[in-house]
Amino acid sequence: MQKGVIQLKHKPSILSVGTVGGKKEHDGPLGKMFDHIDETDTFGMPTWEQSESEMQRIALNTAMEAGGMKIHDIDAIFAGDLINQCTSSGYGLAGFDVPFFGLFGACSTIAEGLCLASMLVDSGKFDRAAAVTSSHNCSAERQFRYPLEYGGQRPPTAQWTVTGSAALILGQHDKPPYITEVLPGRVTDKGINDANNMGAAMAPAAIDTLKRYFTQSKKSPDEFSAIFTGDLGYEGSGILIDLLRAEGIDIGRVHHDCGLMIYDRERQDMHAGGSGCGCGATVLAGHILPRMRELALTDVLFVATGAMMSPGAVQQGLTIPGIAHLVHISMSEG
Amino acid sequence: MQKGVIQLKHKPSILSVGTVGGKKEHDGPLGKMFDHIDETDTFGMPTWEQSESEMQRIALNTAMEAGGMKIHDIDAIFAGDLINQCTSSGYGLAGFDVPFFGLFGACSTIAEGLCLASMLVDSGKFDRAAAVTSSHNCSAERQFRYPLEYGGQRPPTAQWTVTGSAALILGQHDKPPYITEVLPGRVTDKGINDANNMGAAMAPAAIDTLKRYFTQSKKSPDEFSAIFTGDLGYEGSGILIDLLRAEGIDIGRVHHDCGLMIYDRERQDMHAGGSGCGCGATVLAGHILPRMRELALTDVLFVATGAMMSPGAVQQGLTIPGIAHLVHISMSEG
Repeated sequence: MQKGVIQLKHKPSILSVGTVGGKKEHDGPLGKMFDHIDETDTFGMPTWEQSESEMQRIALNTAMEAGGMKIHDIDAIFAGDLINQCTSSGYGLAGFDVPFFGLFGACSTIAEGLCLASMLVDSGKFDRAAAVTSSHNCSAERQFRYPLEYGGQRPPTAQWTVTGSAALILGQHDKPPYITEVLPGRVTDKGINDANNMGAAMAPAAIDTLKRYFTQSKKSPDEFSAIFTGDLGYEGSGILIDLLRAEGIDIGRVHHDCGLMIYDRERQDMHAGGSGCGCGATVLAGHILPRMRELALTDVLFVATGAMMSPGAVQQGLTIPGIAHLVHISMSEG
Repeated sequence: MQKGVIQLKHKPSILSVGTVGGKKEHDGPLGKMFDHIDETDTFGMPTWEQSESEMQRIALNTAMEAGGMKIHDIDAIFAGDLINQCTSSGYGLAGFDVPFFGLFGACSTIAEGLCLASMLVDSGKFDRAAAVTSSHNCSAERQFRYPLEYGGQRPPTAQWTVTGSAALILGQHDKPPYITEVLPGRVTDKGINDANNMGAAMAPAAIDTLKRYFTQSKKSPDEFSAIFTGDLGYEGSGILIDLLRAEGIDIGRVHHDCGLMIYDRERQDMHAGGSGCGCGATVLAGHILPRMRELALTDVLFVATGAMMSPGAVQQGLTIPGIAHLVHISMSEG
């Protein structure tokens, strides 16, 4: 019988975070959540891919500084991104002399990293571990769609890849917030093949994970201060709420989507909302966790979602598999 | 102080494996090690990328069958590959209803997966976990170098990407072989920027990992039946042995490289040897572990190496970061 929700006996602490963002993210409703901003989006580098790597480097350094740590205080880094061969992570974090686990979970990567880091800290294999991820609008556009100079039109269901990076450092049980449970996602493919509607491709994975969570835990959504999905956006969030309701699970009152929080949909005209590895990661590190520390939120499910297609797979007519990893974060020992 | 070599208290067992290979691999000196072969290299699929996905599906199914397991007996899959957005794994394993951790460690992926799976089985977070990986010469060539039809010449330092996939299923301590220790790798970049000399780019990572292992464990290389590197090939193996010797560590008598074992260098003219996620993975699962079961080898270090560049990064003139994860496999309880 497959293990379900994994209880973390010792409840690892989220010790410190670092967040980095670009111009559009700074202009958005959560613009103040970033530790570092570059209005040029270049972060001083000559190519967009190197800019994204640099964001990861800054995010991890910021998190280490915030936690008063040196690099040898960290036992492992779990990092990934959207760029081919995950080079934003590989190059951005090459200078840190720390055991490195490269991940690919598309936009779910921060939750994948938190699942692995928290389980391994909980079991004492590591004392401290970092989860790091990033996305950059300009590197993602030219890889997944068109070079920016082409000026392609975007359909209303399209999401805008966030220029952002976050690092979260976990450690042995200390102060809250704690990671109390995790539920790793399963690859779910319901036949969506429109790369401009990733919300619809990812929603079934979020449904699978949340349905398993509520069935196995016997909890109700209203027991949580909030349930955050990573970047389902407008389209995917609607699908998630409707289809879960049909399963008898109503998350409508407590659900928020990081992709809908990070931009002002009217003023910034971001179509279906934000997406990218940096979306859920920066909103979690820069907004949700501070709100938890001030006890405006006490008990949160964070479910980051990823669409695991490549441009080549879409060109070959394949459908888009999704995945959603769940992390339960709490301010209480209970 | 950073954790070093991680001792696995309960010594998880490698319960079963599955291996899949192509024509050139079947023609090689280890050709009999594969459970499944397709002489056309297509595995019945219309594109090379889908062929590679299919190989992963077959490898995992074969490992499950060999172990007498059903899909719900497995708690987690750790999988990755070389293809953009790791689609060989995402698509190949989408049909398995099992929590999925996508990895990117280039050719080191099988060892990254074994490190994570064995630590999490050891700590009881999972009862059984699979590590799966693949590479396919034709999908790799057109992505990293040229389409096959172009017929590009290869320099003598170039390695040949193996068409192969392997799945290994780990479980709680039972029968040998056991995974007794792991040492995750650090990203190491010594300035190599020749994408046709990946052995040289990866060797410094293997040196970093092996030097840390022998320093921390206070063991000597000759205490092991063998030390296998993943795919340093002719060029990288020479660098590894020479530079480790300069550090006072002599692995010359026990070192073998999977990239040099899988093809006949003279008869098959593979230049510097085999490479790819499928190289170390199939040699480990199909050759090394059976040799351990018959006690021809009793105590083995398996160090898979990865070159974490992308074509885009190389075009931008960046150097190539390497990584090497170490897994200690033993037939004894001691």
